[in-house]
Amino acid sequence: MAVETDADSVVVDARRLEQFVVSVFTTLGLTEANARDAADVLVKSDIYGIESHGIPRLAGYVNRLKSGAMTINPEVVIVHELPSTAMVDGANGLGMIVGKRAMEVAIRKAQATGAGFVSVRNSSHFGIAGYYARMALEHDMIGFCMTNVGSGGNTPPTGGRTGFFGTNPIAVAAPTNTPPAFVMDFATTVVASGKLQIAQRRNHDVPLGWIINGDGVPSTNPAERHGGGYILPLGGLRETGGHKGYGLMLLVDILSGVLSGAAVGATASKLTPEGARAEQERSVGDASNTGHFFGALLVDGFRPVEEFKTEMDEMFRVIRSSERLPGWERIYVHGETEWEAERDRLANGIPLDLPTYQSLEGISADLGVPLNVKIVKNVKT
Amino acid sequence: MAVETDADSVVVDARRLEQFVVSVFTTLGLTEANARDAADVLVKSDIYGIESHGIPRLAGYVNRLKSGAMTINPEVVIVHELPSTAMVDGANGLGMIVGKRAMEVAIRKAQATGAGFVSVRNSSHFGIAGYYARMALEHDMIGFCMTNVGSGGNTPPTGGRTGFFGTNPIAVAAPTNTPPAFVMDFATTVVASGKLQIAQRRNHDVPLGWIINGDGVPSTNPAERHGGGYILPLGGLRETGGHKGYGLMLLVDILSGVLSGAAVGATASKLTPEGARAEQERSVGDASNTGHFFGALLVDGFRPVEEFKTEMDEMFRVIRSSERLPGWERIYVHGETEWEAERDRLANGIPLDLPTYQSLEGISADLGVPLNVKIVKNVKT
Repeated sequence: MAVETDADSVVVDARRLEQFVVSVFTTLGLTEANARDAADVLVKSDIYGIESHGIPRLAGYVNRLKSGAMTINPEVVIVHELPSTAMVDGANGLGMIVGKRAMEVAIRKAQATGAGFVSVRNSSHFGIAGYYARMALEHDMIGFCMTNVGSGGNTPPTGGRTGFFGTNPIAVAAPTNTPPAFVMDFATTVVASGKLQIAQRRNHDVPLGWIINGDGVPSTNPAERHGGGYILPLGGLRETGGHKGYGLMLLVDILSGVLSGAAVGATASKLTPEGARAEQERSVGDASNTGHFFGALLVDGFRPVEEFKTEMDEMFRVIRSSERLPGWERIYVHGETEWEAERDRLANGIPLDLPTYQSLEGISADLGVPLNVKIVKNVKT
Repeated sequence: MAVETDADSVVVDARRLEQFVVSVFTTLGLTEANARDAADVLVKSDIYGIESHGIPRLAGYVNRLKSGAMTINPEVVIVHELPSTAMVDGANGLGMIVGKRAMEVAIRKAQATGAGFVSVRNSSHFGIAGYYARMALEHDMIGFCMTNVGSGGNTPPTGGRTGFFGTNPIAVAAPTNTPPAFVMDFATTVVASGKLQIAQRRNHDVPLGWIINGDGVPSTNPAERHGGGYILPLGGLRETGGHKGYGLMLLVDILSGVLSGAAVGATASKLTPEGARAEQERSVGDASNTGHFFGALLVDGFRPVEEFKTEMDEMFRVIRSSERLPGWERIYVHGETEWEAERDRLANGIPLDLPTYQSLEGISADLGVPLNVKIVKNVKT
């Protein structure tokens, strides 16, 4: 659970941090309900220990809201629907607001028919995909979430040298009797961009299989990610199953993008010279038209949920207690590290690295929102 | 499209091969309709060039049907359902018969509500998962299929040294205007067992990342798969994202196994000494209780299907025409190699390796079903 930081960290209280984020968003004009929804997604990310997606990104969201690049309080509408499906337009709002509304639609439909699936267009970055999949758990449903958010073309198709795909995460959550629930949530690339950036800042090599250089040769030098290099899809090169990761990335683009009418491949336009030029000229006010995909399956639509949960517990008990390889202290099931981080951070606070804490000070000064979140003072500045 | 064989191959006619398989199954007591369903799944596998799952497995199916290990003509029933979901019991029938019925239920529900999802218990090996996902295409739906078929515990959880998971394949099919449709279909292990066996027979090394030996050390020697070694999940070791493949394997077991009440992990019982003993003592007549999961989403439940197909075509056009890495002749989209194999093999015949052809001769002699399938005589025996 150690936090990777480049400098000393500042430990902040989760509840006060959330209140700060709510105040920032209401100051920018969001309704109290929208502000609370968006703040909950962001702060939960830090509570779960997923630093790459929470508070460190607040300044980016604030800048886009201030610049007029996003609708402050989007009117999220169902464009078309059947009893178990819907296509939702996010009205170019904050992804966290759009995402919660759309997942609520999926859950409502699953309550009525057993299954609900919603594809979303015209949204934006929505934080961690796992948040929305988890929303299904309290309804005794299995939750699904994907998004084709871009990051400028991290990954080419297998055999290609032009970045087409974003990190295209997939998340699934399923209930258990004994916590934690099953929650898998990962990029369909080998590794998230953030980990590569950390390695580059520290001049560390990265494992073979993360990136290729501009000639398509695997490299351990994170700097080669740029200058024509790319992060590989899950599975790495073709010979170790990289075409399977490429397939998963396409699946995310199909369900989040093509099925909704959102932008596809994040950067499809960049693959032609005209597209690349148009992309560079895009004003900050342009909508990102990010796509999402949400799903919910009611367990009771298949078998009694108590039987399901009992067997989930038993499966995980057997896996956790099975024999370990040398050097492994434990065998984890997905969702376990986030659950342990949650207990620790709600009790002991959330460690933020210094640049992140300073970005909050900047937002505080800019918007006149008081920042009173520290619970341990160990900053050396 | 070159077929990997250890000996000379025999080229057979697809239609006559299918008729032979139908006759074999009807001779064993299957109804004509059941026999045609099962034969179509098997022969399509060979037509698509997926040799590991088609006719080479016919002898195994025949043996299990003859031994009484499976119900000859299963009464496949819906045990529980809601408008968009169902749990189906396969009555210990051939997986190909059970699978087609269950996918038909999913499609029927998707026609009514936009979405249909079906979890299946008490089935058996069903051939290629992609077959069932493809059934959605002619209905302008996106099709999904998974199965937790065992193979005796190929793969341990990340950090573990006891095989828990089968190859747990995932297949998804989505329609296009211009053929081929998108069809991804792959094991959630790095590689299928069959490819490992071929390398071992030929004394070839395998790429680093496919297997670990009994000490958890990556190995290029396929013989180390046995004696405590295992095939890794997609992504390989933890540092290259193997925990993501492990998550996908769990997902398949949750949706195919836990959600239906089928056997889970294929070998969960083997993880305890008592379970391992019980497993060895299982008589040939015992049901395998394999689980499957099927899904269908009606594209028109989200957006007009013609818009969807047009954008699918455009996305694939951009990907296929994007810049290639050195040494790559083409960039493939999933489903393309199978489509090319189909055109080739329907016109020119299906190459079967000699042991496979000989297994058909054995079945022919055993059951008294004439084998008249060869179109080229190049056998050296």
